[in-house]
Amino acid sequence: MSNTSSLDVIASLCKRRGFIFHSSEVYGGINGFWDYGPLGCEMKRNIKDAWWQAMVRDREDVAGLDATIIMHPAIWKASGHLDTFSDPMCTCKSCKKLMRADQVDDILTDGEIGKTLQALLDEHADYGKIAGWCKGKGKGLAPNLPAVTDPDALTAAVEKLKADPACATTLSALYALLGAGAPSTRCPYCGGELTEPRPFNLMFKTIVGPVDDPSNVAYLRPETAQAIFAQFLNVYATSRMSVPFGIAQMGKSFRNEVTPRNYTFRSREFEQMELEFFIKPDEAVELLYGKVTTMADQPDLSVPQKEWGWEVWHKYWVEQRKKWIIACGLPKDSFVEYWQKPDELAHYARACVDIEYAFPFGVQELEGIAARSDFDLTQHQKHSGKSMEVFDEPLKQVCSKMDETAKAAFVEKVAAEWQSRGKDPEAARAFARKLFEGRYIPHVIEPSAGVDRMMLALLCNAYEEQKLVDEKGKEDTRVVMHFSPKVAPVKVAVFPLVKNKPEVYNKAREIFEYLRRRTAAFWDEGGAIGRRYRRQDEVGTPWCITVDFQTAEDDTFTVRERDSMKQERMTLAQFKAMLDEALVF
Amino acid sequence: MSNTSSLDVIASLCKRRGFIFHSSEVYGGINGFWDYGPLGCEMKRNIKDAWWQAMVRDREDVAGLDATIIMHPAIWKASGHLDTFSDPMCTCKSCKKLMRADQVDDILTDGEIGKTLQALLDEHADYGKIAGWCKGKGKGLAPNLPAVTDPDALTAAVEKLKADPACATTLSALYALLGAGAPSTRCPYCGGELTEPRPFNLMFKTIVGPVDDPSNVAYLRPETAQAIFAQFLNVYATSRMSVPFGIAQMGKSFRNEVTPRNYTFRSREFEQMELEFFIKPDEAVELLYGKVTTMADQPDLSVPQKEWGWEVWHKYWVEQRKKWIIACGLPKDSFVEYWQKPDELAHYARACVDIEYAFPFGVQELEGIAARSDFDLTQHQKHSGKSMEVFDEPLKQVCSKMDETAKAAFVEKVAAEWQSRGKDPEAARAFARKLFEGRYIPHVIEPSAGVDRMMLALLCNAYEEQKLVDEKGKEDTRVVMHFSPKVAPVKVAVFPLVKNKPEVYNKAREIFEYLRRRTAAFWDEGGAIGRRYRRQDEVGTPWCITVDFQTAEDDTFTVRERDSMKQERMTLAQFKAMLDEALVF
Repeated sequence: MSNTSSLDVIASLCKRRGFIFHSSEVYGGINGFWDYGPLGCEMKRNIKDAWWQAMVRDREDVAGLDATIIMHPAIWKASGHLDTFSDPMCTCKSCKKLMRADQVDDILTDGEIGKTLQALLDEHADYGKIAGWCKGKGKGLAPNLPAVTDPDALTAAVEKLKADPACATTLSALYALLGAGAPSTRCPYCGGELTEPRPFNLMFKTIVGPVDDPSNVAYLRPETAQAIFAQFLNVYATSRMSVPFGIAQMGKSFRNEVTPRNYTFRSREFEQMELEFFIKPDEAVELLYGKVTTMADQPDLSVPQKEWGWEVWHKYWVEQRKKWIIACGLPKDSFVEYWQKPDELAHYARACVDIEYAFPFGVQELEGIAARSDFDLTQHQKHSGKSMEVFDEPLKQVCSKMDETAKAAFVEKVAAEWQSRGKDPEAARAFARKLFEGRYIPHVIEPSAGVDRMMLALLCNAYEEQKLVDEKGKEDTRVVMHFSPKVAPVKVAVFPLVKNKPEVYNKAREIFEYLRRRTAAFWDEGGAIGRRYRRQDEVGTPWCITVDFQTAEDDTFTVRERDSMKQERMTLAQFKAMLDEALVF
Repeated sequence: MSNTSSLDVIASLCKRRGFIFHSSEVYGGINGFWDYGPLGCEMKRNIKDAWWQAMVRDREDVAGLDATIIMHPAIWKASGHLDTFSDPMCTCKSCKKLMRADQVDDILTDGEIGKTLQALLDEHADYGKIAGWCKGKGKGLAPNLPAVTDPDALTAAVEKLKADPACATTLSALYALLGAGAPSTRCPYCGGELTEPRPFNLMFKTIVGPVDDPSNVAYLRPETAQAIFAQFLNVYATSRMSVPFGIAQMGKSFRNEVTPRNYTFRSREFEQMELEFFIKPDEAVELLYGKVTTMADQPDLSVPQKEWGWEVWHKYWVEQRKKWIIACGLPKDSFVEYWQKPDELAHYARACVDIEYAFPFGVQELEGIAARSDFDLTQHQKHSGKSMEVFDEPLKQVCSKMDETAKAAFVEKVAAEWQSRGKDPEAARAFARKLFEGRYIPHVIEPSAGVDRMMLALLCNAYEEQKLVDEKGKEDTRVVMHFSPKVAPVKVAVFPLVKNKPEVYNKAREIFEYLRRRTAAFWDEGGAIGRRYRRQDEVGTPWCITVDFQTAEDDTFTVRERDSMKQERMTLAQFKAMLDEALVF
């Protein structure tokens, strides 16, 4: 599936089969909010459980956290969200409509206006109609449009429009051609003048307590990460872990997107899975172990090593995350690793990798893995007045054995290195001298994933319409979701071949009862077996078990595999062993 | 543990060991918000997983839902929350303080003011001091206080205060005695005049989209239940279930409590686990099966029966929930079942049971099980204009065989029965005639539980300080959390007896690696074994495994049980079997 219309097909299946509904649909819906139905919420649970298992429970160096969505507003001042987490907004001075300054072009090309104009061009290439529309419904869009009445000039104008290859791909070019000037300087709805863009903060605001006063304003968190930094000291003090270690959190986040779009991809309420993995600054690693492993050393990334510098830790987490994504069922070649260019990085970031999936609407970010230096903890130290430094006894021990000359040389080496990266050498000296006391603010690697995006990628990847031809040559279409058994909402469906024979029916119930205590099993006794298969194919159930007359005799049943549609007789013990194997991450 | 100070002891343990932290603590905290730390979030997950397992995965008649926190505001209009989900608030005309009208007495008796006054009475029973205080710090509290200067009159006044038994229990009586009038008509802080109580809505408000306009106001859900009603039609259409069936949801809810208190018990952001279980109206059951089972029939509640009326379904869910609470580890005698009196019930409710736990601060609601009739779906039908009726083919079939006389008799019987309950007989007739077509709005039973309250009850129930005497007669105190293994955040801790013997250490690691893939296991190699036991006791780990020299020889290790402190040698297979057994719900 590789175009936008396929997103509609998936959304339609999701609604029909209870994966995803529009929130508040019965009241006409609410833009940018989506609910997960019976199958969707099980699949979402599977994704989240798999993440928690891989990132927390399977590791000794990560602790969990479950913090509140509403936190002290000072957190968002410290993190920078209050000042900079905003989109530029314009207002039309004429029709008063509000829009994102960077999306004016999109509204022209993708929105209703763009579609109408494009249709006129596609179907008629009729200059007169376009001109009329521009002065009517698309009022003001092309104020400088020349009045062309001469038939030859008309034809020439249409030919000119059709011949211009830019017209086919962007309506901006059309506007330019029509002499309307750069469209993003005019209101796409009425052609009026737009105000200068002003920042609009994307955090949802609320008031805590009964008094509607600026001092009681609070925000719904726009990310789960900041709670981890805010609770860093508490977790560090209570978890008996030492750097390197991580704190993980999953949960809802909220962004008041001006233009939610692409189904669940950009919504206003979504769920994140974030890890902040705290590491020693490279300078501390160097003091402790005399060396810092970098990627130039071509390290083995399978098991963390104490000599690793930030660069290796960052790459390690990129690899860990890719492994997990593949384990969830996205093929290795369905996503790409995009390394942000130096000029794309936030000022504090050392590196940032986006894992991008080829969604039907384009190649877009699935998750990001950022090396954020000590920026966040430093900010919170500054704003809270509480020291975010950890004490590293072995580091202090090592440094206590250095003589003053060695220390001075180290301080100057760090100062020079920081200066070469455009950072204050005096701050570098203070930092280096703190290291001698065993004190530093940890640096952090942040793998940050979106539950809804992962789910959407898995839905897009799984969807297939297969053309089948039966023995009689009859054509048929099978819709099948090729979910990995690990994330599939239902693992196995159990069917009695017939309803009215107790020896078959009761045996099937017995097998079903056994399975549903141990996995997500579904019972279906209605309709022909073939139709029951199709119903399960459409929701991605990997196996269907049909219990028949032979089952009562030899305790075997037919197991039909979803993708190959092959059938095989097995005992319950054989099936259970295969199932367990398939569910191991 | 049975007093308020024990709550402080538990809160202190929770902070010290990483169960619960004050949200945004590093910024001074935010009132009414609590974060779950590494152990707390694992325990919370265990509680939620257990609920989901019991209420959704183990049942064929319940589907899950995961809806958004922000929904269309019309939902809260329909549910009644917009109009009636409020507390009465007063403002003092003099000092401008805001307070809950129904808590003015509490502030006087429980707050700082009450404590000071009580202390004066307790310690001195000195009328002069009380009079002085009332006119000083407690300014205005007793404006009509007579000036008593005559020593005899003073003594008489004090004696009068002391002798009055009401004085010992309520300060209201004292105020009355002092001639200050009903205290709740005066400001408890300054004695000023209070405004008439005005309703303050407890829903957190926000604005969706960039335009700050009343039409864009939305609310953070104050309960998860309404999303279930709003998505009833979608789930019903996609889940292939027929009435009776349920829809379950877990998730965050928000209430802008004026006075959050009692630790995590009444907080502003909390997590709910709610089931809406839809049943046929009793009249439909009667038509279908010729009878309606009521509690008077003393039915067996273990397996649902089709003839059950609402009363039996309600009692069934009360029993189911009690079973679950006991399975989580709260002893049967630690909670009570409080049946709301007819005059306490909401107008639409048929019955409501509160399961109340004896928290240190009083016997308070843990969860509620309400029979809500068809109120909620009817409201949403009215406000959305979408029919919430289901179609019941068997019901239609049965009714098609009734003759007109029988139908008319049934209609009148229903009308009379409704009228006897004060309901409109004409509406009853319309309802009965719809039944003949197989159509009705389902009724609902709602078991509604709070994750945080369950967790707090489990913490309170588990806490014990044990006085121990060792062989040498030395006294010691052991703090132990008697969690059920099912909810305990860590199931087993593994200790190597010594760190420096590879045959012990590596064997211990091997056992630990095996266990942590299968359960929540913790590794501790630091300090004396006795201290390691105590650390685990304090977080409620049911078993500690110590690997020693013998392990290398015969593959057995010491398993120490938390409550009895008994030690037993076992193999890994034996331990695993015992563990599996203990974790079955």
